Amino acid sequence: MSTYPEDLRELVDNYLDGLRFSSAPATTGLDEAMRYSLLAGGKRIRPVLALATARAIGIEAARILPAAAAIELIHTYSLIHDDLPAMDDDELRRGIPTSHVKFGENVAILAGDGLFAEAMRLFTERQEGDPARVLAALRELVTATGVGGMVGGQYVDVTELEGGGGGVDRDRLREMHSLKTGRLIASSVGVVLILGELPETETIPYRRFADELGVLFQIVDDILDVTGSDEELGKPSGSDERHGKLTYVSAYGLDEARELASESHRKARAALSEAAAETDDLARITDFIHTRHT
Amino acid sequence: MSTYPEDLRELVDNYLDGLRFSSAPATTGLDEAMRYSLLAGGKRIRPVLALATARAIGIEAARILPAAAAIELIHTYSLIHDDLPAMDDDELRRGIPTSHVKFGENVAILAGDGLFAEAMRLFTERQEGDPARVLAALRELVTATGVGGMVGGQYVDVTELEGGGGGVDRDRLREMHSLKTGRLIASSVGVVLILGELPETETIPYRRFADELGVLFQIVDDILDVTGSDEELGKPSGSDERHGKLTYVSAYGLDEARELASESHRKARAALSEAAAETDDLARITDFIHTRHT
Repeated sequence: MSTYPEDLRELVDNYLDGLRFSSAPATTGLDEAMRYSLLAGGKRIRPVLALATARAIGIEAARILPAAAAIELIHTYSLIHDDLPAMDDDELRRGIPTSHVKFGENVAILAGDGLFAEAMRLFTERQEGDPARVLAALRELVTATGVGGMVGGQYVDVTELEGGGGGVDRDRLREMHSLKTGRLIASSVGVVLILGELPETETIPYRRFADELGVLFQIVDDILDVTGSDEELGKPSGSDERHGKLTYVSAYGLDEARELASESHRKARAALSEAAAETDDLARITDFIHTRHT
Repeated sequence: MSTYPEDLRELVDNYLDGLRFSSAPATTGLDEAMRYSLLAGGKRIRPVLALATARAIGIEAARILPAAAAIELIHTYSLIHDDLPAMDDDELRRGIPTSHVKFGENVAILAGDGLFAEAMRLFTERQEGDPARVLAALRELVTATGVGGMVGGQYVDVTELEGGGGGVDRDRLREMHSLKTGRLIASSVGVVLILGELPETETIPYRRFADELGVLFQIVDDILDVTGSDEELGKPSGSDERHGKLTYVSAYGLDEARELASESHRKARAALSEAAAETDDLARITDFIHTRHT
């Protein structure tokens, strides 16, 4: 079993740790709330995926750190808003109190809003490259973030699937997850393909890989919510079931969900092997996502 | 007294009315919630200001509609989040129920998030121009939106100024409003100066004008909250006082606030007169902002 590319995670963590969002005393508390969630740890899968993609296509990883970090800011903002009382109402995340428990609901909403805006600032201010490419890469990212992506998926999650359980619709399950989680994961690869000016035909295996990786990630996430311990997850396990959520486990059962994960892992690795490049780090991330416990 | 440039407002309204944010059945309801707030009317001061700036510097107004509309989407998103129960807890806006009253708190949060993301998509997908300029203009907009702008100002508003009333700090009042309202209004002008490739020295009077216009807007807003009728405002008047908010009226009294508004109006018009261009529409907007009743 290969191991997670910790060197890339360290690059990401150091970069995130160096970010400050406020230069005025009046907004220091907002900066603190934003950094509280941003620096709560985690494997940094999305930005590490971006850096590993950069390496695979021959760009120095550090060069795309602003774009990679922007993706992590967006991911963090979505977690803060998803945890809100009006949404999933979660009190713990990564073993520590969620933003609204720690800072109050109003500050949590604004910390999320602020992270999204500052992600855009980071991308437009600090990401180097041909402006047309930077703009196109940003377009890919915000498309993955909006109604046709993360925000739309969260909408489907909170309004249509909750309280279901009766008529399980597997196509909708896949569609919802593709929007909510898959698009942002896929764009972590896609953004770098654009910044790296990879010829369109050469991007095909990477894009197929990235789409499959999003599926794999979500299946495993649903499995872990059932099989993980509270300590491993950093939050109470079984929360999907308590919320009556439609998941791969509720739709297929645990055994079949595990088979789906293996199948998805195999497809992702197969796509990767078609890329004419050194994709070791990407393979390591794929293995990690399949076998992770947290 | 000159009149508001209704022709520009019509351009904006038609463009906004043509926007659709969802192409999938599963997110139609989110699109509906976003459009409910976006199309609730209003004078469209920010995008009209952008279009009037375009005219002044010799660009066809319609060419900058995507950028102008993106600013209105951001403004609308901020209103939805400001109205939430955890923030100002307002139930009426422009005479109709606020988003969370109409669609529920979870959908309102996501409608705001969605509008911000779709604003970014609109700007990166549809705004024409030299990519370096489009990117620089977007940078100006998101800087005005983040911690050093709108979101930061809202943070100061909800966390520090409420419940004050005792020790009135006029510098902080001005700083908070400059962040919360002023930056986005100023960027409605600034974004167009960048897209229009106006030489740096020629931008100076416009930027001075735009900054002052933001101040004028807020002073008048604070006055109207005290003097306006419920019907005119489309929401209960006196809400600032009920929330114990620090405003120009609470800090200076009504008479002095009115004098400050006149002084600010005079300064804005003076800055405008230094721009070597046809600035009639901008002057009309300035007069309107000074004398408006809603």
